[in-house]
Amino acid sequence: MSEDYKGKLLRVNLSNGVISTESYDPVILRRYLGGWGLIAYHLLKEVPAGCDPLGAQNKLIFTTGVMTGQPIAGGGRHMIGGKSPLTGGFGAGECGGYFGAELKRAGWDSIIFEGISPTPVYLWIKDDQVELRSADHLWGRETLDVQDAIREELGDKWIRVAQIGPAGERLARIANIIHDVNRAVGRTGMGAVMGSKRLRAVAVRGSKRPYTADPERISELSKWFRDHYKETGSAVFSTLGTMRMVRNNNNFGGLPTRNFSEGVFEGFEKLSAEHQLASVTVGRDSCFGCPIKCKWEVEINDPDFPVRREYGGPEYETTGAFGSLCGVDDNRVTCYANQLCNAAGLDTIGAGSAIATAIECYERGLLTREQTDGLELRFGDGAAVIELVKLTARREGFGDVLAEGSRRLAEWIGGDAPRYTVNIKGQDLAMHDPRVKYGHGLGVALSPTGADHMHSLHDNAYQTVGGIHEIEPLGVIEPLPFDDLSSAKARLVRQVMIWRVLDNLTGICMFHSWTVQQKVDLVSAVTGWSTSAIELWQAAERAYNMARAFNYREGFGPQDDRLPERIMQPVPAGPVGGKAIPAEEFEQAKRTLYGMMGWSQETAAPTRIKLEELDIPWVADLMEGCQASEQTRERREGGGDALG
Amino acid sequence: MSEDYKGKLLRVNLSNGVISTESYDPVILRRYLGGWGLIAYHLLKEVPAGCDPLGAQNKLIFTTGVMTGQPIAGGGRHMIGGKSPLTGGFGAGECGGYFGAELKRAGWDSIIFEGISPTPVYLWIKDDQVELRSADHLWGRETLDVQDAIREELGDKWIRVAQIGPAGERLARIANIIHDVNRAVGRTGMGAVMGSKRLRAVAVRGSKRPYTADPERISELSKWFRDHYKETGSAVFSTLGTMRMVRNNNNFGGLPTRNFSEGVFEGFEKLSAEHQLASVTVGRDSCFGCPIKCKWEVEINDPDFPVRREYGGPEYETTGAFGSLCGVDDNRVTCYANQLCNAAGLDTIGAGSAIATAIECYERGLLTREQTDGLELRFGDGAAVIELVKLTARREGFGDVLAEGSRRLAEWIGGDAPRYTVNIKGQDLAMHDPRVKYGHGLGVALSPTGADHMHSLHDNAYQTVGGIHEIEPLGVIEPLPFDDLSSAKARLVRQVMIWRVLDNLTGICMFHSWTVQQKVDLVSAVTGWSTSAIELWQAAERAYNMARAFNYREGFGPQDDRLPERIMQPVPAGPVGGKAIPAEEFEQAKRTLYGMMGWSQETAAPTRIKLEELDIPWVADLMEGCQASEQTRERREGGGDALG
Repeated sequence: MSEDYKGKLLRVNLSNGVISTESYDPVILRRYLGGWGLIAYHLLKEVPAGCDPLGAQNKLIFTTGVMTGQPIAGGGRHMIGGKSPLTGGFGAGECGGYFGAELKRAGWDSIIFEGISPTPVYLWIKDDQVELRSADHLWGRETLDVQDAIREELGDKWIRVAQIGPAGERLARIANIIHDVNRAVGRTGMGAVMGSKRLRAVAVRGSKRPYTADPERISELSKWFRDHYKETGSAVFSTLGTMRMVRNNNNFGGLPTRNFSEGVFEGFEKLSAEHQLASVTVGRDSCFGCPIKCKWEVEINDPDFPVRREYGGPEYETTGAFGSLCGVDDNRVTCYANQLCNAAGLDTIGAGSAIATAIECYERGLLTREQTDGLELRFGDGAAVIELVKLTARREGFGDVLAEGSRRLAEWIGGDAPRYTVNIKGQDLAMHDPRVKYGHGLGVALSPTGADHMHSLHDNAYQTVGGIHEIEPLGVIEPLPFDDLSSAKARLVRQVMIWRVLDNLTGICMFHSWTVQQKVDLVSAVTGWSTSAIELWQAAERAYNMARAFNYREGFGPQDDRLPERIMQPVPAGPVGGKAIPAEEFEQAKRTLYGMMGWSQETAAPTRIKLEELDIPWVADLMEGCQASEQTRERREGGGDALG
Repeated sequence: MSEDYKGKLLRVNLSNGVISTESYDPVILRRYLGGWGLIAYHLLKEVPAGCDPLGAQNKLIFTTGVMTGQPIAGGGRHMIGGKSPLTGGFGAGECGGYFGAELKRAGWDSIIFEGISPTPVYLWIKDDQVELRSADHLWGRETLDVQDAIREELGDKWIRVAQIGPAGERLARIANIIHDVNRAVGRTGMGAVMGSKRLRAVAVRGSKRPYTADPERISELSKWFRDHYKETGSAVFSTLGTMRMVRNNNNFGGLPTRNFSEGVFEGFEKLSAEHQLASVTVGRDSCFGCPIKCKWEVEINDPDFPVRREYGGPEYETTGAFGSLCGVDDNRVTCYANQLCNAAGLDTIGAGSAIATAIECYERGLLTREQTDGLELRFGDGAAVIELVKLTARREGFGDVLAEGSRRLAEWIGGDAPRYTVNIKGQDLAMHDPRVKYGHGLGVALSPTGADHMHSLHDNAYQTVGGIHEIEPLGVIEPLPFDDLSSAKARLVRQVMIWRVLDNLTGICMFHSWTVQQKVDLVSAVTGWSTSAIELWQAAERAYNMARAFNYREGFGPQDDRLPERIMQPVPAGPVGGKAIPAEEFEQAKRTLYGMMGWSQETAAPTRIKLEELDIPWVADLMEGCQASEQTRERREGGGDALG
């Protein structure tokens, strides 16, 4: 194989301040590609089973994909992972923007942060010059403020900043890592891991072109996309962005409403993309190399909702989480809550879900006014939502519990409260209700990162615009209804799971309708490898299985792959009103998926033979060597990292 | 999916002479593609478990691949299958030439022959006009004679003829089906099935262009190949053809010599490609659309070896089978034996192997001169080899037993004789010794068609020219030695098995170094499908699993997936002299492959979950419905079709 495509890794020991560099073996890069693949590789090799996610043994891994930093549409993504303080398992998220590309331009594929810094620091990378700098003066400040301060301090306004906010500093388990102050690696609590290491930010500036084996081919493909994307599934993202899903999901009867107790929201029009465009949107934003411009900037001149465009605008997930999920039909609330979260480094889905859980528990009398520090909680009360976001960001009063996420909040409330959380493995569902897409339910139930909508089938999507182009080439040639749970549906779920993870490994944005062939061309053109969709597909399967192997080591089993109780009950009204997901069929489909993925029915973890098929027998050795499964389960469920 | 790519099927009931036509559902074509896929589909659906391969219930299926008849290099192949009278299991073979393309040009994708004709017939297809004609006057005649007669009778010298010869008429289990009088669907005894139906020939002439969704793209790819194939792995086939393997395999110590008792042949130079070119080769021959011209025409003006160019020249397999395998170092013998086989419709590998077995048994005193009708058999005696081929072709005297193939011959000889046959599932090894390529051993042990070199890894090939181009893109990025039996080798074997079967399904010649991407482009351009290597890969896996399911139904199990005793013993000398394949490691690797393929360790058949993953749960239903496994095993091993 061509070994011209090389990779470099920065290892930063925060405990002693030592920074070292390593080269990736080209074979490692080819086998694991990037993203989940490299994250799982490092976590399995370097992070001991059962360690405290917020302790010195956990590591925080910044990484990229093959396409990150290449001048093509959708190549602006990077990924961050570590053991999750929210789930206790494999933690990872990805985001777009400019940080990943800048990191690549500085010459780095990954950064591994180890240990815990004695004092707040940030990392400054200028090509090969890398230094840890004091962040004492940045601690406690909002993200935009810190980004400005770093740029000023270092004298370069083009520096790209990844950072936690006050929420991450305070180890909120729903803290995220914010980039460009308006994009987040949102899920699985990576902000808390970063906070636990007292690492406030990573600032990067690069001046090199990432290696490209065939730049001409990349230019051709880039040009093709610019000329043709409007004829592909990408088109919808350039018109109504992710916000189009407000109307879509409401139409399907699956717009999460009042903590998923309903699927149709009477106030959806006021949250819709069309209303958002007409009322508050002042501009468009894009990621590195992307012509789609799916992101919106909003501005509101209202003293109660002082929203500035620098923080971007709420995506669909955020609009759902602070809007319909909390029963709020006011986009000033969703826009302002979005800004507060971006300023504080809070995951909007996690925060909205915790708040919705709190409201429901309050309305049901499970949560008292004393516990909420005198706040009255009602669905539809936008002002209360804003107040709760502020408290959560600072972990003040009742906000201290909300910051732990809905699962721990419910444990704290006690009694029946856990029935009113809607999470899988401790991570809240994004704004996609499995009751209108059963395949999505299977995907989120199985995901190693907990309820994660990024690599789960959206059953309806391929029957409407924007999905069919990528499902048919995976060999799904006959349509399946949203409520099908046959083996054919399980197969479809598997195909999409693996395919989506490939986007993560390659660093290609899922909103970009590159065909399978084009994705292979892209990877070949960058790396010079003589590769194929067959190899890349296996790489994605490999990464998925490694993430599951990590979870096995941390004590996860089949009982963790389930939908929340609420989701197993029908919504009262709308297109799927009164229609429950059939539990036995769902369980059967889940078991079918285990088999199709090559997982043991007993442990829900990859079998040795599957790992050998995927060319990673070392993972099977590691799993066998780890007899800690039972202990780690106990530790995970009853131990130190839980219910803080 | 696009449904513009359609297919037509001709169903010919030979018992009552009724000819009917059917259309393939476009979804069926996409799911099974062609070749093994369609053959297995029809066999599983239409041929009852346990039926006599030479009886009325067996069917003979002619089919094509997606590329058959398209104007691209390597697109001249078609496939023929049925239940094998040699193995009792899945029978199938493929060949190049012009017949398949002509069949497609006549508008047909498949022909299914059912029943048994009361009198000899041949089928004449001229586009939509199809008729059964008497073959009384053709019966008993040699193939070239019959081809001439048919062309003359129908008044068209461009008619393409597929036919059996006298060997097939006489139900020799090693009879093949000959095309253009010099190309054979050689293995698994399809000629005997055709003979049992009293179908002497299929003559076809077409005038239509097969459907092509994007002819321009096909032209581009075709042009690319013509311009570039000399820079690819295909180049070696255009210089020394398959004959180059005489020297190659001898160098590796794996040129099958004296019935596989040795791996280095002292007389190899006289059988070599170089000597063949210099001594007897008078021309080159090509298949439909192919610039490589890997086939050679030979001519010998010697009354003892009257070899005419019309019958082509011996390929490597034939040269090995009648040359080194019989200890003969005279290419006049291999050329003439080749001609006799092509004239009689005998598989050269099967015939050479039966003869070599007979010689060894004779030399060992297990076979007497009485049994050979007075013939003295010695390794190295070319005249005796020729005589035995003639007897076999006519099933005269001792030839009657040889025509049954080496396994049944050895049973007839009795005593220790079975130890000196080198077959798997009753089908003899081609001229590729697993002792110099352990991965090949795994491939042939598992193949549903018995020892079949067409879809088994040639471990050495990818370390020399002509192989690496296609193995690396399958994700095999680190070299593995020929004697490795690790899980990585099992994985490599699996990748190649599946990939090669895809060539069969698409109808692309394996000597054509199309990249994975190009193969997808080719299929897309012909069909108009939005497909990918991921889908095509699954289609190949599907076909392989269906063939294994067929064998399960016929009573095959893990005990049938083994290398012959002789191969498990070391050769005495040469590069691998004294080095035995380690039996336990080999068994372990085989078991690993079962797991990787999704087969039960108990039954060696596909599990339900694997079949569901491959979108064919109906095959699992069929397997469960078939409780006949034990009975059919008994029938297969002790019953009517065996040891005739």
